[in-house]
Amino acid sequence: MRSAPDASEPTPPARTRPGGRTARIRTQVLDAVTAELAEHGYDALSMDAVATRAGVHRATVYRRWQDVGGLLADLFSAAGDQPWHPRDTGSLRGDLAALNREIQESLTAEPSLAVALIAASFRSGEAARALQHLWDDRYTQSEVIVERAILRDELPPGTDARALLIAATAPVYHHLVLLRTPPDPELPESAAATAVLAADSGAFSR
Amino acid sequence: MRSAPDASEPTPPARTRPGGRTARIRTQVLDAVTAELAEHGYDALSMDAVATRAGVHRATVYRRWQDVGGLLADLFSAAGDQPWHPRDTGSLRGDLAALNREIQESLTAEPSLAVALIAASFRSGEAARALQHLWDDRYTQSEVIVERAILRDELPPGTDARALLIAATAPVYHHLVLLRTPPDPELPESAAATAVLAADSGAFSR
Repeated sequence: MRSAPDASEPTPPARTRPGGRTARIRTQVLDAVTAELAEHGYDALSMDAVATRAGVHRATVYRRWQDVGGLLADLFSAAGDQPWHPRDTGSLRGDLAALNREIQESLTAEPSLAVALIAASFRSGEAARALQHLWDDRYTQSEVIVERAILRDELPPGTDARALLIAATAPVYHHLVLLRTPPDPELPESAAATAVLAADSGAFSR
Repeated sequence: MRSAPDASEPTPPARTRPGGRTARIRTQVLDAVTAELAEHGYDALSMDAVATRAGVHRATVYRRWQDVGGLLADLFSAAGDQPWHPRDTGSLRGDLAALNREIQESLTAEPSLAVALIAASFRSGEAARALQHLWDDRYTQSEVIVERAILRDELPPGTDARALLIAATAPVYHHLVLLRTPPDPELPESAAATAVLAADSGAFSR
């Protein structure tokens, strides 16, 4: 979960009037960014195309988001605001497999917004920082998978949750984002099973 | 190892006269690509900057490599021609840790050519295919690690070498290329140890 903003930080404008015009414009603009990324990829993303698609004045888009990096950072930030919880399947292996299936689906969607965002992160420092923040949130939210497994006595207390989650999910990212092998329907399950076997042998005990 | 080229394939020009002018120009141009990528990243890579840096006529560079994608593909191809063997440390865990250290070093070099090439692969289909080919070569060459472990009775015959190698190396790539966490000096060893524990539990037995 994202921590509460420090009181000394300026409150992001979109959150001050959640139902107001500011929020509506943000939604329109971020929806347009998503659609443009999905259709044309990061290379073709431009402030003007986003403004046109969103039906929002160019000047408003420039004033509020400055550049393409600002748009992407806000898109990640909005994604981080969405409630998200890993599925509870009743077992560590089932939970990790469900998480991996969700990752595999997001990376193999045609077009994949997730891959477009990863690609963007190689070209925009702002996008890279925002993606890093979002990933950190997601892994933190996923730690409940390990906490539940400890409560079920599937894992010893003190298990390094982050290391286990990364061992379970990294092969899915590696195959689909870096190696770009054709999606293997068995991979989410087999990568989860491998991490559980390693955990059972104490690989993540601190 | 790359297989011998099929006799029906046209022989790449650079290989016809290994010591000749063609080969010398290729070396100059690919060295210039490497230097440009390392200094300025993929975004700034241009045919003209490469030609100038290499001291080779622009027309020659355009005729032989067509575009930036062609330059990158040939750079990957040249990297694949370099003899490379994983280190033989005498144990599966040691071999995997050495492989991971080599990966970690290549990804954390300042500047990292490897990261520049990965970034390029998101924008050039030709670069993506060439990187995929290079990675495939490297994993194939690394399978000897698993073969040696089978001969030493560390692993059962029929172990899925590729799955084991990917489980061992994926967390290093995931941390450094996607999550962009600060390099953890323990990670090459711990990711190797995790994969060995999973292997000992039969995770990669076919």
